[in-house]
Amino acid sequence: MFKVLAKDGNAKRGEFTTVHGKIQTPVFMNVGTAAAIKGAVAAEDLKTIKTQVELSNTYHLHVRPGDKVVKKLGGLHKFMNWDRPILTDSGGFQVFSLAGLRKIKEEGVYFNSHVDGRKIFMGPEESMQIQSNLASTIAMAFDECPSSVASRQYIENSVARTTRWLERCKKEMNRLNGLEDTINKNQLLFGINQGGIYDDIRVEQAKAIADMDLDGYAVGGLAVGESHEEMYRIIEKVEPHLPKDKPIYLMGVGTPANILEAVERGVDFFDCVYPSRNGRHGHVYTNAGKLNLFNAKYETDSRPIEEGCECPACKYHSRAYIRHLLKAKEMLGMRLCVLHNLYFYNTMMEEIRDAIEAGNYAEYKAKKLEGFKENDKK
Amino acid sequence: MFKVLAKDGNAKRGEFTTVHGKIQTPVFMNVGTAAAIKGAVAAEDLKTIKTQVELSNTYHLHVRPGDKVVKKLGGLHKFMNWDRPILTDSGGFQVFSLAGLRKIKEEGVYFNSHVDGRKIFMGPEESMQIQSNLASTIAMAFDECPSSVASRQYIENSVARTTRWLERCKKEMNRLNGLEDTINKNQLLFGINQGGIYDDIRVEQAKAIADMDLDGYAVGGLAVGESHEEMYRIIEKVEPHLPKDKPIYLMGVGTPANILEAVERGVDFFDCVYPSRNGRHGHVYTNAGKLNLFNAKYETDSRPIEEGCECPACKYHSRAYIRHLLKAKEMLGMRLCVLHNLYFYNTMMEEIRDAIEAGNYAEYKAKKLEGFKENDKK
Repeated sequence: MFKVLAKDGNAKRGEFTTVHGKIQTPVFMNVGTAAAIKGAVAAEDLKTIKTQVELSNTYHLHVRPGDKVVKKLGGLHKFMNWDRPILTDSGGFQVFSLAGLRKIKEEGVYFNSHVDGRKIFMGPEESMQIQSNLASTIAMAFDECPSSVASRQYIENSVARTTRWLERCKKEMNRLNGLEDTINKNQLLFGINQGGIYDDIRVEQAKAIADMDLDGYAVGGLAVGESHEEMYRIIEKVEPHLPKDKPIYLMGVGTPANILEAVERGVDFFDCVYPSRNGRHGHVYTNAGKLNLFNAKYETDSRPIEEGCECPACKYHSRAYIRHLLKAKEMLGMRLCVLHNLYFYNTMMEEIRDAIEAGNYAEYKAKKLEGFKENDKK
Repeated sequence: MFKVLAKDGNAKRGEFTTVHGKIQTPVFMNVGTAAAIKGAVAAEDLKTIKTQVELSNTYHLHVRPGDKVVKKLGGLHKFMNWDRPILTDSGGFQVFSLAGLRKIKEEGVYFNSHVDGRKIFMGPEESMQIQSNLASTIAMAFDECPSSVASRQYIENSVARTTRWLERCKKEMNRLNGLEDTINKNQLLFGINQGGIYDDIRVEQAKAIADMDLDGYAVGGLAVGESHEEMYRIIEKVEPHLPKDKPIYLMGVGTPANILEAVERGVDFFDCVYPSRNGRHGHVYTNAGKLNLFNAKYETDSRPIEEGCECPACKYHSRAYIRHLLKAKEMLGMRLCVLHNLYFYNTMMEEIRDAIEAGNYAEYKAKKLEGFKENDKK
């Protein structure tokens, strides 16, 4: 299902086949929390900006509109009118960060909805059932994402429970994929490596889950406070122990520089809210570094965000116009910046794939990172 | 410049030629206050939804980003990347309704900016200069729009001043169109009929301005509190006294029913914030009447807003999905509703033009109005 087409050092150029089409890796998945990318971006816009995989959040869709409503409407693909791959997270991360967490037990997690406060229970089986109702292409295992400042003892216990939960996820997903009224009977399941910043816990757990023959393996619990160097070190430690024939997904990462470094260390899948969140605040990515369009120097700047960029913002509009829209609080300003930023990320992934194929990834990476610093020099 | 192609009773099917292309009338102009239609709609979207004329607000653009900034960037067309006609209002209405009005004098109006509170003076000459900087296709005369509950004495004085201001507008527009560095040297000027709900004041002023050979004539100060019947009566009284070879523009009107009635009474141009404002609140127009997409009955409704509608919302998305977006406060929900509503209005104008050409306007209107009541019957 995952075919490595080329390698350049540890960087892989791959192809991941799903029932919703092939994913060319390395890939950056575009985050559409509530079945829509924030910033008034629709599924029909995603094809224009080279999106391969849309990522939706299980917790958000479970509380609103409800996964049963989505199932009744034919699943997420039909609901949002997107026919390419969708990955859903497990809901765990949001339960721990957003919802009113009540308690974690062996059976799962008790919490309160952030929308209406009602009590909800979610365990591995419930997470799989919700994701099966949503009928995403790839489901994520239900895990605990412990605080990066948690004690070693806490992390050890948590990771052991996450591994036990993964067994239950796999069993439940197999059962659900076999049911008559399941929308996507080929739903894939990715497991998640945890262990905080403790290399030995990470490696031990990676070995344990590598044997479980999952469709892909994520490295979770990073980019939550540790340094970039710690993050890169953990990827280097864990990667050798994960199956060679399965893709590696670094969850919630990151900046363009983070992605360039992680690809070099063997990562295939990425997702992050940065491009959409930064776009909504008028911060836009270019090959010469980030620009803050609120800056007065763009008031009469008739150039596009980036010369030569083929995104819907740069093709039609100037920095001056977009700055005006942002200042006037016109939603269109946010939409254009989000479209540009996602296009920027998706295009960089395309370049990364080309560089790996051409066997000049290290050179490409160095040049790209150097370029990002240009604006800082001015 | 204005050619009447067909008549059906008092309803006219016309063509208004401008330097930015021909406008087919009757036309509904789409309001983009700050050089963008609220709801994340860009100029490139407008062609998809059959927009002929975009309307921008002079007051808003004067205070932000500033008409001099827009001029420096090549005028409104270049600024927002829209190559078809643009109408700008005079700024007067917003000064009286939005800004901190300080006083009205013969020379003009003193007020405070609603953005930063700074003191601004605007008279007929200033309004023409600002609109000339914006370089719209059609400029509106600077008028006072008195409260509909103002006394007869107040209205008489105000209307006399508005007529004197119109003379000054015309003179200044002629001067500006002759200047070397004016962007649009063919900028058109529409005069405005005022007079509250006093037929005799309205008629007298209409006669006075009819002689001034303006490019078009607006009926202003309606849809601000008087009844629909009063509005229709005033149009009927004023219309016979306006030039036959110039278009009539009913400012700020209105509901689909208002438009159908006013077309029958000889009106050619319309504008209104209803379709965009209602769209942002999830109220959408259909041929069977308005729907409130927040209503629970649409939770699992997989139909488009209107069956057969070719707008970007109906082509790709269901009522259930759009309802979910609105409930989840996703901007995309607003964008889709605004696109649908403007498409609905623009398509109705197309039908109106066809019906006048076919000579069955009365029949078309009656059927359309009957249809709007359908949802109320359920």
